[in-house]
Amino acid sequence: MEMWYTEKQTPSVSLSLKTTKTLHVEQTEFQHLAMIETEAFGRMLVLDGMVQTSVVDEFVYHEMIAHPALYTHPNPKNVLVIGGGDGGTIREIIKHPSVEKATLVEIDGRIIELSKQYLPEIAVALTGEPKVEVKVEDGIKHINESKNTYDVILVDSTEPVGPAVGLFSQDFYQGIYDALKEDGLMVAQTESPFFNGDLITSVNKRLRNIFPYVKTYLASIPTYPSGLWSFTMGSKKYKIEDVDINNLYSIETKYFTPELMLASTKLPKFVQDLVKGE
Amino acid sequence: MEMWYTEKQTPSVSLSLKTTKTLHVEQTEFQHLAMIETEAFGRMLVLDGMVQTSVVDEFVYHEMIAHPALYTHPNPKNVLVIGGGDGGTIREIIKHPSVEKATLVEIDGRIIELSKQYLPEIAVALTGEPKVEVKVEDGIKHINESKNTYDVILVDSTEPVGPAVGLFSQDFYQGIYDALKEDGLMVAQTESPFFNGDLITSVNKRLRNIFPYVKTYLASIPTYPSGLWSFTMGSKKYKIEDVDINNLYSIETKYFTPELMLASTKLPKFVQDLVKGE
Repeated sequence: MEMWYTEKQTPSVSLSLKTTKTLHVEQTEFQHLAMIETEAFGRMLVLDGMVQTSVVDEFVYHEMIAHPALYTHPNPKNVLVIGGGDGGTIREIIKHPSVEKATLVEIDGRIIELSKQYLPEIAVALTGEPKVEVKVEDGIKHINESKNTYDVILVDSTEPVGPAVGLFSQDFYQGIYDALKEDGLMVAQTESPFFNGDLITSVNKRLRNIFPYVKTYLASIPTYPSGLWSFTMGSKKYKIEDVDINNLYSIETKYFTPELMLASTKLPKFVQDLVKGE
Repeated sequence: MEMWYTEKQTPSVSLSLKTTKTLHVEQTEFQHLAMIETEAFGRMLVLDGMVQTSVVDEFVYHEMIAHPALYTHPNPKNVLVIGGGDGGTIREIIKHPSVEKATLVEIDGRIIELSKQYLPEIAVALTGEPKVEVKVEDGIKHINESKNTYDVILVDSTEPVGPAVGLFSQDFYQGIYDALKEDGLMVAQTESPFFNGDLITSVNKRLRNIFPYVKTYLASIPTYPSGLWSFTMGSKKYKIEDVDINNLYSIETKYFTPELMLASTKLPKFVQDLVKGE
C-alpha cells in the first residue's frame, strides 16, 4: 500500500509526496500541525496543509532568509526572528561571529517542542546555545514592545492566512522599523512570484513607505509552490549591493554563497515588474 | 466532476494540475503525445507523461535556452535547434537581428503539426518566416552530416529517456563540436539540479572533454520537476562572463535580462559541487 501526502498549493495545482511514516498529527491552539516522513524530502513539518520545511531542502530557505541580512549588516549583534519555530533560521544566524544574541519569538510553542523532537538537525540551536533565547509569544506584541533594539529582524512566517495575516501588514512593518536600531534592517519571506505576485507587489509598496532601501531577492525551494520563492529586505542604511563580497568571513553553507546573494537580487523581467508596481 | 493531470516527476514526487480540456492524445512513431488544457498553466504539451511546455510558463525555458547563447556569440548567423518541435526556441532565436538562418531539426513531425494547431503562440515562427527552415529528421544524423556549419547549436531535447537518450552522449557532443564553426557554441537543457544531479555532473565532464569553456546556468520553471532547471553551454571561444551587458541591443522578454544571464551562472553551493565533480 502506498501513502501519499498531497498539498493543494493553489486550487488547481497540487504537489504529492510519497510518505513513509506519519510521525505526529495534532490541532494546536493556532493551527493544524503534522510531522510526516517522505521518501523524497525526508521528515517534514506541515502546518494547515502547507509544507513549512523538510530536512532535505530546508537549507535553501533557512540560509537565504538569514545570510543576506547578516552579511548586509556589517556588525549584527542583536537579532530577532519572528516565527521560525522549527529553529532553522536561528541555526544559520549564530554562524555569524558578531551575533551576541538571537531571539526567537514563536506564537505556537508546539512547533518548537515537536521540531526539537522530530527535526533535531533543524532545531539544533534551540537548546544549549547561550546566545539563543526562545520565547513563546505573539510576534506582533513583541514587536510593539521593542524600540530601537535589534540590528536585524527576520520575519520567518507561514503563509498570509491564519495566525500570520498580521505579519504582512503596514502596521507590523512600521513596528519592525521602530524595533530596529537606527541602522537596522529586516527580511521577510514573501511567497512565490509565479503564484503570489500581488503579495510581492503590496509588500514592496508597504516597505517602501517606511524604509529607504527595499530589495526583493529569490531562491529555489522544491517543496514550496512553483519552486521559486521570494524574500524582501527593508533597510534603514545598508544595501546588499554595497557588500564587499571579496572581504567576507566564510561560513558553511549548501546553497548560499556571497556571489549568489548578489545574483539573487537580479530579478527575472516579470518579477522586476512586480516589485516596480505602482 | 474535476479532472486532474498527474505527472510522476520521480517515483515519489508528483505534480497534479487541474485540467479543463483534453485537446488531443495519440501515440506517435516515437512517443506518447498529449495536448491538454490546464487551469493554472493553460494549454500544454505532454510527451511520455512529462510536461514539455505550457503556454503560461514556456517563456522561461525558451528565453533561457536561447538568449544566453545568442548574446554570448557576438555575431550568430546560422543557428540550429535539435528537438524543440513546439517552436518556442526558434521564436526566440529570430529576435536576434544577426540571425540569417534558423534551422529546426525535430525527429517527430507530429509535435510540429500539433503545436501549430494547439500552441500557435509558441509555434508562431514555424510558418511564414523566411529565415526559418523546419526539418523532420533525426538530430543525431543531421549533426553527423554537418561540419563547420553553425554558429550556435541548441539542444532542446526531452528527458534522457526514449528518443532523446543519444542527445546526452559524448559522441553526440563531439558531433556538435564538429558541426560548429571554429568560434561556435552550444547550449543543452540539462535537467534539475535537485533531482538529476548525476546527469549535470556527467554532461559537464563530457563537455569539458571537448570544449575549452563549459558553463552551467539555472532558471526557474514551475511545471518542471523541482521547479529549478539547468542549461549547460559548451563554447570554443566566447564566454558568458565576457559579454558586455551594457552594450547589447534589447529584445522583448518576460524572464531574460542581460543582468540575469550573468546572475544565472552564479550557482548555489551544492550545484557548484555538481559541476565541479571529478
